Amino acid sequence: MNWTRKHLLGIEDLSAEEILYILETADGFKEVSTRSIKKVPALRGKVIVNLFFEPSTRTRISFELAGARLSADVINFTSTTSSTIKGESLVDTARNIEAMGVDILVVRHPCAGVPHQLARAVKASVVNAGDGTHEHPTQALLDMFTIKCLRGSLAGLKIALVGDISHSRVARSNIWGLQKLGAKVYAVGPPTMVPAALEKLGVTVSHNLDEIIPEVDVFNMLRIQMERQAQGLFPTIREYSRLFGLNRERLARAKPEVLVLHPGPVNRGVEVTPEVADGPRSVILNQVTNGLAVRMAVLYLISGGGASAATAH
Amino acid sequence: MNWTRKHLLGIEDLSAEEILYILETADGFKEVSTRSIKKVPALRGKVIVNLFFEPSTRTRISFELAGARLSADVINFTSTTSSTIKGESLVDTARNIEAMGVDILVVRHPCAGVPHQLARAVKASVVNAGDGTHEHPTQALLDMFTIKCLRGSLAGLKIALVGDISHSRVARSNIWGLQKLGAKVYAVGPPTMVPAALEKLGVTVSHNLDEIIPEVDVFNMLRIQMERQAQGLFPTIREYSRLFGLNRERLARAKPEVLVLHPGPVNRGVEVTPEVADGPRSVILNQVTNGLAVRMAVLYLISGGGASAATAH
Amino acid sequence: MNWTRKHLLGIEDLSAEEILYILETADGFKEVSTRSIKKVPALRGKVIVNLFFEPSTRTRISFELAGARLSADVINFTSTTSSTIKGESLVDTARNIEAMGVDILVVRHPCAGVPHQLARAVKASVVNAGDGTHEHPTQALLDMFTIKCLRGSLAGLKIALVGDISHSRVARSNIWGLQKLGAKVYAVGPPTMVPAALEKLGVTVSHNLDEIIPEVDVFNMLRIQMERQAQGLFPTIREYSRLFGLNRERLARAKPEVLVLHPGPVNRGVEVTPEVADGPRSVILNQVTNGLAVRMAVLYLISGGGASAATAH
Repeated sequence: MNWTRKHLLGIEDLSAEEILYILETADGFKEVSTRSIKKVPALRGKVIVNLFFEPSTRTRISFELAGARLSADVINFTSTTSSTIKGESLVDTARNIEAMGVDILVVRHPCAGVPHQLARAVKASVVNAGDGTHEHPTQALLDMFTIKCLRGSLAGLKIALVGDISHSRVARSNIWGLQKLGAKVYAVGPPTMVPAALEKLGVTVSHNLDEIIPEVDVFNMLRIQMERQAQGLFPTIREYSRLFGLNRERLARAKPEVLVLHPGPVNRGVEVTPEVADGPRSVILNQVTNGLAVRMAVLYLISGGGASAATAH
Repeated sequence: MNWTRKHLLGIEDLSAEEILYILETADGFKEVSTRSIKKVPALRGKVIVNLFFEPSTRTRISFELAGARLSADVINFTSTTSSTIKGESLVDTARNIEAMGVDILVVRHPCAGVPHQLARAVKASVVNAGDGTHEHPTQALLDMFTIKCLRGSLAGLKIALVGDISHSRVARSNIWGLQKLGAKVYAVGPPTMVPAALEKLGVTVSHNLDEIIPEVDVFNMLRIQMERQAQGLFPTIREYSRLFGLNRERLARAKPEVLVLHPGPVNRGVEVTPEVADGPRSVILNQVTNGLAVRMAVLYLISGGGASAATAH
Repeated sequence: MNWTRKHLLGIEDLSAEEILYILETADGFKEVSTRSIKKVPALRGKVIVNLFFEPSTRTRISFELAGARLSADVINFTSTTSSTIKGESLVDTARNIEAMGVDILVVRHPCAGVPHQLARAVKASVVNAGDGTHEHPTQALLDMFTIKCLRGSLAGLKIALVGDISHSRVARSNIWGLQKLGAKVYAVGPPTMVPAALEKLGVTVSHNLDEIIPEVDVFNMLRIQMERQAQGLFPTIREYSRLFGLNRERLARAKPEVLVLHPGPVNRGVEVTPEVADGPRSVILNQVTNGLAVRMAVLYLISGGGASAATAH
C-alpha cells in the first residue's frame, strides 16, 4: 500500500491495513536499535518538536530517541518552561513553533481533541502522544506490535484489558485497534471503572478476573491512578489488588503461553506483583523496546517515507 | 564589508552598514529553512549555550533551531535547573560554562547590562537575547528584516511602535535600528507608557492612535504586560484595547499596503483583534520564520563566518 | 593495559594503573576541545542518558558536552520532569530507559549506592556522577588529571583537602585516588567536619590550616554547604572563613608553585577570597576544562573504546 496520512491522531480512524503497514514498517526499524551505530539518515534535517503539556518520562524520551535514531533534530517543549504561562493560546503556540520550520509536532495534552485541533490549524504533521482520556495511539500500536511479534497474528486472540477502562486512553486506543485486527477484547474491572455501557464498543465486559483467566491469551494490566480512590472508584488499593491484580496464583491458572503487558509505570503489588512483572510471561520491557521502533515507523511514514514503498494492495 | 564584531549586545552600537549586512546574510540563510534537509555545516563542532535566566519559549527554541540548522551543538541552561540557586555568581557560572569549550553564549536575563558584563568576562562570543528593559537586538533585527523583505527598504517608512514603550526592550532596540536605516519612528501609547521625554530618542510621541493611522506604513503592536495594570500604568484592559488596540475598523483607515507586526505572544483582543492578527496585513508568523534566519546569520557572523565574505565597501 | 570495566562507580575499587590509564586517555581527548571542529566520531549512534535526581549545572552540562563531542546522542532526564513523581521505582525507571536502547546511564542521586544498585539491575554501562556523600569519581579524576598535567606526577605530593571532609563525596573519592597515586593527603577543617576517625582512611587530620600551609603542594578547597551552619557544624561563615579560608596572606606563606583547586561552585570570600580564586595559583577553570576531557575518556573507555588499545602491562 501507499501511506497517505499526514497525521497520526488516533487508532479509531485507521484501517486494519494501515495498522498492519505501521507494524511492518516498525519491524524494519526494530533492527536499527540492535546495531552498534543506532542511526539511519531517513529524517536528516527534519525538525520534530515534542509539545508536552503533561509530565511524562518514557513517552517523551521514546519520541526523542526515535527522532534522534532517524537523524532528525528534536526540540523539547514542556508546559513548565512554556509561554502558555503568558496566556498565549494553544493554537498560537503551535503556529509559532511551526513557523520556525518544524516538520512534526508530537503533542501530549490533558484535554481530549487537542491534537486534532492543532492538526487543523498547522501545516506540520501532528502525532497524538496522548490526549486526555481519548486516545494514545502509539501506545496501542506498540502493544499490538508486541503481541504480533510474539504470536504472529492478533486474529482470534482473546485479549483482556484490566483496570480503569472508562478513564483510560490506552484502553480506548487498544479497543479500536485490537478489534480491527480481529482480536476479541474483554474489559475487566470493577463496575465503577468498567460500566456495562462499554459493551457498545464491541467488548465483553467482565467484573470478575478469575472467571476469564483460563481463556485469555493476553492480559494488558492498565495502570491505576491512585487519585481515583479519593473519587470513590475503588475502596482501597488492597481491595483493588485482591480482585484485579495479577499474581502468581492467578497466572498459574492462565494459558501457559499467556502474555502480560502493562503500559507502565507499574505500581508493583497493585496491578501486578513483582514476580509477575519480572517473570517469564511479562513482556513489559519488550513493549518499551518496541515502542521506539513503532514511533520511528510513525515519524517516518507521516513524513512521506512510506509514499515510495510500493507493496501489493 | 568584513564583519569584525565578536558579540551582538545591542542595536545601539551597530552601524547602519552592519545592520544591513546581518539582514543580507539572513536573506541567504532564509533559503536553508525551505529545503528538505534544513541543515548547513557552517558551525559543525561549535558549541552554543542558551543561558536563560527568564522563562521563554519562542526565543529559546528559535536559537536552538538556528544552532541546529548550522550543525552546532546546542546546550540549554535555564535558571530553574541552575547552580545559581547555590549562590554562584553569574560571572562564575558563565566562566565555568565557557571553560568547557563553549563558543557562543546566548544570554537572556532580567537585569539590563548582564550580557555586556559577561562579554567582558569571557572569551566566548555573547549574544544578547533580551536584557531587562534594555535591548533585544535579534527581535529588532527580525522586525527590520521582515519589513525589508516586504518593502525593499526601510528608508522613509513611517513606523509606529504601539504600547508600553518605556518598559520595552523590543521598542528600544527597534528605535535605534529603524532610525539608523532611515525610517521615521512614532511611539504611541498612554502617557504613562509613552512619556514626552521619549522624544529625546528622536521619535515622535503620540497618545492618539487614531490620529496617526492614515499615514503609518508599519504598525509594531507591542505586547502588554498584564501586571502593569496593577502598577497603575493603564486603568483596564478594555480601556487600553479601546484606545490602542488594532481592530478591523482602525485597519480600514490605514494605508492598503500597511504591515502589522507583533513580537508575540499576542494577547488576542488586546493589542490586536483576532481578525487583524490572522488577517492579510498581519506578518506575525513571517516574523517568527524570519527570526530563525536572522539568528542563524548572527550566530554565523560572530563565529567568524563573515570575515572571509568580501563585499564592496 | 586493556580496559575491561563496564561501569565507573567509584575510585575506591580502581587500581592505580586503571586511574592512570583514564588520565592518559583524557590527555588524548584534551586536544579535541582545542580544535575548531570539536568532535570525534567515537560514540556515533550510541545513546547516553543523564539520569539526574539532584539539581546540577556543571556536571550535567559537562557530561552532555562530553557525549556530544564523542558524537553520541545525549538525553537529559531530571527528577523534576520525571515519572518518579508517579511512584515508579528507581530500578524500573532505569530498566525502562535502558529498554529503549540506551548504552550509558550517567546517574546522580542523593542516596549513596544508587549507581551500584542500577549497575546490577541494567545491562547498560553506569557512570556515577555523584551518589549522596559516598563518591564522585569523575570529580576526583579531573582533580588528579589537573594536578598531573601541571606537576607531571602525583607521587610524593602533599595534598590538603580543606573543608567538610565528613560529608563530602568529592573528598572521599579524592582520598582514595590520591593515595593510590602515591600522594600524601591531609584532611583539614574544624573537628565537627574532620573527626580524628578519618585517620583510618590513611590521611593526616589537621584542625589548623596555618600550621600545614608551608609544606603543602596542592590545596583542594571544598565547597561549604551553608545549611551545615544550622546543623551546628560551624558557628558562622565569618568564623569558618577566618580559620579555613584561603586568602592572599595565607597563600604568601605557601610554596611558590602551590596549586589551588576548588570543585565549584565557589563561595567567594568563604573557601577562597576572590583574589585567590582568580589569582595565578588558582587552577579552578583548568579543572572545568579538564573535566570534559576526563568525562570523554570515561565514556569512551566504558563503551569498549579502550579494549583494542594495547599498552605494555
